[in-house]
Amino acid sequence: MNTNPTGSIRIALDAMGGDRAPKIVVQGAGIAQIRYPKAEFTFYGNEAEIAPLVAKQKNLRGRVAIVHTPDRISADDKPAIALRSGRNSSMRLAINAVSEGKADAVVSAGNTGALMGMAKFVLKTLPDIDRPAIIAFFPTMKGEAVMLDLGANIECTPENLVDFAVMGAIFANTVLGVHQPRIGLLNVGAEETKGREDVRIAAQELRALELPGEFIGYVEGDDITKGTVDVIVTDGFTGNVALKTAEGTAKMYTEFLKRTFKSSWLAQMGYIFARSAFQKLRKRIDPRTYNGALFVGLRGVCVKSHGGTDGIGFANAIGVAYDLVQYKFNDQISSRVHVMHEKIQALPSEIKTAQPEAVA
Amino acid sequence: MNTNPTGSIRIALDAMGGDRAPKIVVQGAGIAQIRYPKAEFTFYGNEAEIAPLVAKQKNLRGRVAIVHTPDRISADDKPAIALRSGRNSSMRLAINAVSEGKADAVVSAGNTGALMGMAKFVLKTLPDIDRPAIIAFFPTMKGEAVMLDLGANIECTPENLVDFAVMGAIFANTVLGVHQPRIGLLNVGAEETKGREDVRIAAQELRALELPGEFIGYVEGDDITKGTVDVIVTDGFTGNVALKTAEGTAKMYTEFLKRTFKSSWLAQMGYIFARSAFQKLRKRIDPRTYNGALFVGLRGVCVKSHGGTDGIGFANAIGVAYDLVQYKFNDQISSRVHVMHEKIQALPSEIKTAQPEAVA
Repeated sequence: MNTNPTGSIRIALDAMGGDRAPKIVVQGAGIAQIRYPKAEFTFYGNEAEIAPLVAKQKNLRGRVAIVHTPDRISADDKPAIALRSGRNSSMRLAINAVSEGKADAVVSAGNTGALMGMAKFVLKTLPDIDRPAIIAFFPTMKGEAVMLDLGANIECTPENLVDFAVMGAIFANTVLGVHQPRIGLLNVGAEETKGREDVRIAAQELRALELPGEFIGYVEGDDITKGTVDVIVTDGFTGNVALKTAEGTAKMYTEFLKRTFKSSWLAQMGYIFARSAFQKLRKRIDPRTYNGALFVGLRGVCVKSHGGTDGIGFANAIGVAYDLVQYKFNDQISSRVHVMHEKIQALPSEIKTAQPEAVA
Repeated sequence: MNTNPTGSIRIALDAMGGDRAPKIVVQGAGIAQIRYPKAEFTFYGNEAEIAPLVAKQKNLRGRVAIVHTPDRISADDKPAIALRSGRNSSMRLAINAVSEGKADAVVSAGNTGALMGMAKFVLKTLPDIDRPAIIAFFPTMKGEAVMLDLGANIECTPENLVDFAVMGAIFANTVLGVHQPRIGLLNVGAEETKGREDVRIAAQELRALELPGEFIGYVEGDDITKGTVDVIVTDGFTGNVALKTAEGTAKMYTEFLKRTFKSSWLAQMGYIFARSAFQKLRKRIDPRTYNGALFVGLRGVCVKSHGGTDGIGFANAIGVAYDLVQYKFNDQISSRVHVMHEKIQALPSEIKTAQPEAVA
């Protein structure tokens, strides 16, 4: 991580990524500038579009830099195309700024696949990390939890899952402030003998290692929202399906709730009485609060904001990036993961191979 | 399937399975007897407990049989133990009744793992079916959908997934009455080149085959509740995680809703006005309505009721069993799957192997 001598935290912003860019990016920076006075922003994108927006934000005027980039990556561009022909895009140049030491972190609300591909290609993975992962946080009945991998890796080895557990625990510690995060491995049952081989070996290894948190064993899909653990570890296929299933279920409930309040004259009256309470609920489960997925395991902080977010949501994504730089997230990962890998090497071989299913 | 000459449908009930057995089983049978006058019930379990309950149900008295069984499978018994030492249990003898032609279907609210293990061991799989799967139905924004496999198989071959698609479509047709069910394969993106190899090969095969429904391609986690398709096909690991994640998210929303209505005096007033509308919503998403998971692919109809259900929920599980017998669900599967396998044999080999990821 490149920290610079002045103590400021320099954040490169892909001003052209997201459904309503560059407007929400500039608005988000404006909000974040108030929250984090030490942040220094550089916008990458079309100067003619960005400059007038910056001029309107009193607290940004004269404080931020704009690097003009002629190209932008669109939401529909395939990652491979974006990587090859997007060398002068706002996304690419903002990522380059991190690899060149001009910025400490990059935030983009653009195309996820392109951002992942470019960030991996430009920033490279941290030493000892084989696969980067996507991590994000979301509401539970008890507070908040983080889950990874949400889609970067379709298949994972047990060692990838161990790395994810370590990175996830440090993330929960850094972003959620949980001192000793509880870590769970997503599976289809709580018994030791259940599940796919990769998951069972990972569990054996996690039980044998000293982690930056407490490994409590397997968790199931309903434990995610129960708040059983602070960190949920899984492969990118399962994680992506679980995340989207939860989002879909939440949308269905919100839709049913709306229909219910509109279904009769009495129900409409009821809503008028309960409105203020529901506004608080809406705030509690506001997706903007949970905005900011991170590509963990890269040499540099790269935060992905939801494409459809607004200024407040984008400011929250900037906040995630800011925290990770401030608390030297990547340095913590490097030191922990290196030790962990040495310990895995030293583990007895029966821990690193799947045990036959116990005959009860 | 064993249909008997009198036209009645004979259902064996594991009277000792479930959190509140045998009470909810007898109550459920009482409700189902009114809905399905042609159903004939036999209770398997402790006669001393069952007989007084039956005596209280006017419409069951004198119409049902009780087979006394000394043992019962508990919710904590491991499947392997249940299989070995549960030979005289209510669950086992109810399943045996189907294999011996004494009953057309079995319904149990007991231990899922034990029921699956015993049903597989006693009933065996249908000819041409390699792996049985767990299927269930649930609410969507547009109506209802079915998903399989929900946990019987941790890993699946492309051919297993094709069989699941066929069985799922026939199930949607039989239980939901959808004439030409839309089938989707669960994946992490909609593009053809996305996802695990087994999923991509299954998609190629499904596109090339004539199905008892329409294969619309890949669906993602949020499509489950959107109602994009009638049948969602996936392996048992992913399906189990998705199902439990959806259940957990639904519980969290219900909990947040309760807290919101209790959070202030005004909100409580609001609930009084909106109560009748919310009672309709509760009915719409009532888990009892969606009770009754089926083990598809076995020589016999075996329905699993939720363990925590009540009499109404158990009656709905009986209803699922009744429909499947009445519409000769297993005969339909056998005839379709056999033809399908011959067609898969005849497919060109490039369809049966994973194509390299297209470079865009």
